[in-house]
Amino acid sequence: MSFDSTIHAKAIQLVRDCYHMCDAAGSGHPTSGASLAHLVTVLMYTHMRWEPANPGHPASDRLVLSEGHAVPIIYAACADLGVAIGDDEQLRPMNAQDILTLRAVDSPLEGHPSPAEGFPFFDAATGSLGQGLSVACGLAAAARLDGVSKRIYCLIGDGEAREGQIWEAIDMICDGQWSAVCPIFNANGFGQSEVVSRQQSPDTLAAKLEAAGFEAVVLDGHNPTAIAEALRHHATAAADPQHSPIAIVAQTVKGWGSPSQQGDGHHGKPATGQAKQTALDELDAFAQQHGAIADTPLRVAPITLAKPARQSADEPMSFSAAAEAFGMTADLEAGKMATRRAYGLALRALGLANPQVVALDADVKNSTFAQDFAQDEQLAERFFECHIAEQNMISLAAGLSAAGRIPFVSTFAKFLARGYDQVEMAVNSGLNFNLIGSHAGVTLAADGPSQMGLPDVAYFRSWTTMRRHDGRPGFYVLNPSDAHQAYALTVQMAAYDGPCYMRTMRPSVEFLYNANVPFTLGGHEILTEGRDLVIIASGYMVHEANKALEKLDAEGIDATLVDLYAIPFDADKILDLANEHNGYILTIEDNYGGAMGSAVADAAAADGGGFTVKQMYVRRVPKSGRTPDEVLAYCGLSAEHIVQEAMAQLQLTAT
Amino acid sequence: MSFDSTIHAKAIQLVRDCYHMCDAAGSGHPTSGASLAHLVTVLMYTHMRWEPANPGHPASDRLVLSEGHAVPIIYAACADLGVAIGDDEQLRPMNAQDILTLRAVDSPLEGHPSPAEGFPFFDAATGSLGQGLSVACGLAAAARLDGVSKRIYCLIGDGEAREGQIWEAIDMICDGQWSAVCPIFNANGFGQSEVVSRQQSPDTLAAKLEAAGFEAVVLDGHNPTAIAEALRHHATAAADPQHSPIAIVAQTVKGWGSPSQQGDGHHGKPATGQAKQTALDELDAFAQQHGAIADTPLRVAPITLAKPARQSADEPMSFSAAAEAFGMTADLEAGKMATRRAYGLALRALGLANPQVVALDADVKNSTFAQDFAQDEQLAERFFECHIAEQNMISLAAGLSAAGRIPFVSTFAKFLARGYDQVEMAVNSGLNFNLIGSHAGVTLAADGPSQMGLPDVAYFRSWTTMRRHDGRPGFYVLNPSDAHQAYALTVQMAAYDGPCYMRTMRPSVEFLYNANVPFTLGGHEILTEGRDLVIIASGYMVHEANKALEKLDAEGIDATLVDLYAIPFDADKILDLANEHNGYILTIEDNYGGAMGSAVADAAAADGGGFTVKQMYVRRVPKSGRTPDEVLAYCGLSAEHIVQEAMAQLQLTAT
Repeated sequence: MSFDSTIHAKAIQLVRDCYHMCDAAGSGHPTSGASLAHLVTVLMYTHMRWEPANPGHPASDRLVLSEGHAVPIIYAACADLGVAIGDDEQLRPMNAQDILTLRAVDSPLEGHPSPAEGFPFFDAATGSLGQGLSVACGLAAAARLDGVSKRIYCLIGDGEAREGQIWEAIDMICDGQWSAVCPIFNANGFGQSEVVSRQQSPDTLAAKLEAAGFEAVVLDGHNPTAIAEALRHHATAAADPQHSPIAIVAQTVKGWGSPSQQGDGHHGKPATGQAKQTALDELDAFAQQHGAIADTPLRVAPITLAKPARQSADEPMSFSAAAEAFGMTADLEAGKMATRRAYGLALRALGLANPQVVALDADVKNSTFAQDFAQDEQLAERFFECHIAEQNMISLAAGLSAAGRIPFVSTFAKFLARGYDQVEMAVNSGLNFNLIGSHAGVTLAADGPSQMGLPDVAYFRSWTTMRRHDGRPGFYVLNPSDAHQAYALTVQMAAYDGPCYMRTMRPSVEFLYNANVPFTLGGHEILTEGRDLVIIASGYMVHEANKALEKLDAEGIDATLVDLYAIPFDADKILDLANEHNGYILTIEDNYGGAMGSAVADAAAADGGGFTVKQMYVRRVPKSGRTPDEVLAYCGLSAEHIVQEAMAQLQLTAT
Repeated sequence: MSFDSTIHAKAIQLVRDCYHMCDAAGSGHPTSGASLAHLVTVLMYTHMRWEPANPGHPASDRLVLSEGHAVPIIYAACADLGVAIGDDEQLRPMNAQDILTLRAVDSPLEGHPSPAEGFPFFDAATGSLGQGLSVACGLAAAARLDGVSKRIYCLIGDGEAREGQIWEAIDMICDGQWSAVCPIFNANGFGQSEVVSRQQSPDTLAAKLEAAGFEAVVLDGHNPTAIAEALRHHATAAADPQHSPIAIVAQTVKGWGSPSQQGDGHHGKPATGQAKQTALDELDAFAQQHGAIADTPLRVAPITLAKPARQSADEPMSFSAAAEAFGMTADLEAGKMATRRAYGLALRALGLANPQVVALDADVKNSTFAQDFAQDEQLAERFFECHIAEQNMISLAAGLSAAGRIPFVSTFAKFLARGYDQVEMAVNSGLNFNLIGSHAGVTLAADGPSQMGLPDVAYFRSWTTMRRHDGRPGFYVLNPSDAHQAYALTVQMAAYDGPCYMRTMRPSVEFLYNANVPFTLGGHEILTEGRDLVIIASGYMVHEANKALEKLDAEGIDATLVDLYAIPFDADKILDLANEHNGYILTIEDNYGGAMGSAVADAAAADGGGFTVKQMYVRRVPKSGRTPDEVLAYCGLSAEHIVQEAMAQLQLTAT
């Protein structure tokens, strides 16, 4: 039993470290770590093919800790193995002292895993539960595209297995036959505030997995031989494309090895003082009693696969070339096209030019026009139909991004709201991804508010006010008003390393631009130059504002029209412009407030230069209407409303 | 076969109406409706116990159309049965002409179901997929509390069964033995953009249901006798507390009865002109061929249950009385308490005073202090442990609210982001509910950003800029700074009919107020009156601002401090105050931007009176730190930073 006794001894060592580090931190989850001790030890010390000195190696097996709070056990193993940590430029081996910096403000040992703070062993930040298996799917998807048969292990808490997203990911694995993913459920029976529901018991988990199409291996999660056997079984199956995917349901003990730390009431509570000493003594007693002696050398399994070769990207074709190549010349000549239609063209052109571009959609690809990409035979393998499961889609994109791909994720703007928590974790991870919310705003009209993205701009705008670790905005928000702009911005997004959110609209709209106008992240366009006030609009509202300009002209009012298609933007330029117009600004957008107009107001109010910023936006719950015009009028956003508001701002009355 | 032939005849009539109404609307989903024709007919004309003249009757069985886009078939039945529609005050029977107003801007026939536009047959808005079954659970939970054994039917698309939330709800039904809920899966095999995954095939759906603990009845969804039998079986089981819950998996045909409308490519496309005529001719031919003759009178089943008696609410006890009653006097005397702790006390006091108050939590009740409510024997049956499944929790609350309960829903502010789409649908429904996001902002410290609510204020602030159907704000955002305020605002929320979002903090904070200070939704408090500038803070930052005030005083600067604990607020009063301070405003909050400070900037910029609004908020991804002070300093939000910013605004330099 030397394998077993060696693993036991190492597991006990790591659990001891969990207690020490959480004591030092004054918080943390040592007992969750203890429940994973043997699984982590067998995986990291014997089974995973990886290199501690190069933990982000692209051909190494990966470990995703979905139940992020259990991270002390991983830190303990990484310290023991000297895993490289720190700044990208200055990685150094982790050591025993490092673990005592857990959760300190200057330590890379975050309370929950984060690669962005200097821990490249992890691919993505976890800690908001239920997301890790989707990330693992994304890593597996990227590996398959790369032709690298690496394996992806994902440790999932039984409590978090209540999250529907876990089962969205399980379906995705079955759909894609991504058997390289090995979900390991840590069934320790305790959540944070009480015991886990019987719906997440080992038996029920196994039954659910089997129903979905998995082979479920239920085992004792503290039995090293059983764990090793199951992992070998998975490895064999992963190499056989005909084999069902395999999941492990490990029955474990929270606070394993220390009876005084077991049972309810110990979640997330570090043992200190005598309680810690008792826990450690119990571990020692266990070691003695069971002969847990490290009598066999443990050797991390080496990487056997080659690094994937990455092809470089070409310049994508121009809008007109794409329209010609993809049979859309007539639309181009008609001078009218929906921005979502242009997105589809751009996505396809990008896919053909850049092998790293991948596309994901949630069963609305014929509405978002991601189908242009999906239906191109050269691109089909890089398209991921995620079906109606947006949370999984976004975390899947995070996994693809972590593996170096450039994901474009599309669905209705409304339905992306389903995955905002997943979006937040992807930003925290420092990942590069693009979200496209189609049918945004009220001009979707007939389908009504259940399909309209309305607080979306305010939400993503919040991310434009902060900066990522690399100093870039948390998000660029893009709201193109015509097809030329949508095409160009899609191309820009692919070239930019950072999160972008682009809204597209349902209705077809006239061209405002041509192929010669350069658009940039953070840019704006002055469409008309006037004198009396600055009207700032975005998306569809640029067209409505254009109509209003004609009417204002008839009233003798000469307005400047700015197409503010990006947030953040150059606030100084906008304010300089307003200064030339008596400081009068009128903003117009087709979503709820706190959004583009509010970003302008922020800049104006911070300047203190006496600007007057009036905002027009959607101020009521919209409803169905048969045309965009009907719904715009219902929401007080028609050209007539704009005229009234502009006149009121200038303290004039329409004739 | 007179029952079958009668149902066939009625189903065909309703499908014909689907084609007519979608043709009139120019959009809509007739073929989805056709797949539900027999299920809807058997349910609404023979099985459900309800009253068309009083479709919101609290003792009637309920129908939740989770796949909201299929609503034309329900509208057709409602028109045929003369279901009451229109304004609450002026309900009138629906008629055959009404269906031709589908999706018109002045019609209550929304593109997707919405009770808020005048269709009280529905309890909540649907159309964003995967939410209906959770709403149904909420209705069932309320019915059980009311002692009314009504049944809740939920029609779910096979495509939308991919949403993890459906399976969260399935687990909840098993946990709670809520067999009154009858999930009916409409397995027509087609999603919007392609065929449904095999993971959502009838066999797999049935296997998943059985694995979860359901009895799954797979049947032909166009066989009236089979449907009626299954519904009777469910009704019997629903009356037996020992019986497993029962679900129906109905194999159906999208575009049933009209072969020309079947197969891929017909989703959401109304048939017009000759295509419509062909579809109608095919239905007629089917009727003739199969002898679909209405030879038996159909009679809506009457309501047999009594209306639930609702007890009235008392005034909840005061903070000090609650502290005494619940053993917290020492904390009260110490003058220090976490706002989340005060929330728990208030929730319990409210529960005891108001029988309509219910509480929901997602396995963090010992952190949010919803456990105060959960552990009170008198209240336990009104507490719903939703486990780690936030989407289901929020839609469950929507169902409880639709049935007249006042839900308080708590989890970490961060994790509520998982259910923002569900929140949106609840607002669209016009429902009354309260969300409590605990551990908000950066002062959670040690756990790191995966657990911190940061864009939360910006998101909910967006809802404060618009109005519900009743003219009230989409949300009140509340950010209390001390325990007195948190207690009082919790009490206010229970008394107010509309959505509220309150943030609570992890750390214990000193009292700023006493029991005599009245707090209101929309209010603010002036804590210190000064001369040189107005500092506006919220939540924890009020304490940090207080520290800064002392330091500023030492620099000879005399600042006013406003605790702006609510959005929306009285902007005029805030601006009046700023006018007394040279127009200088400095806002401070512990979340990302676009939030409270931006709301102040909106007001200042709209006024144009030359205010200067500088904002302090979190401008980078936070990280773990062992104390709130460390993380505040990391984020540039310490008292020292506030002093620097205030001095800079006054163009002074600290001595």
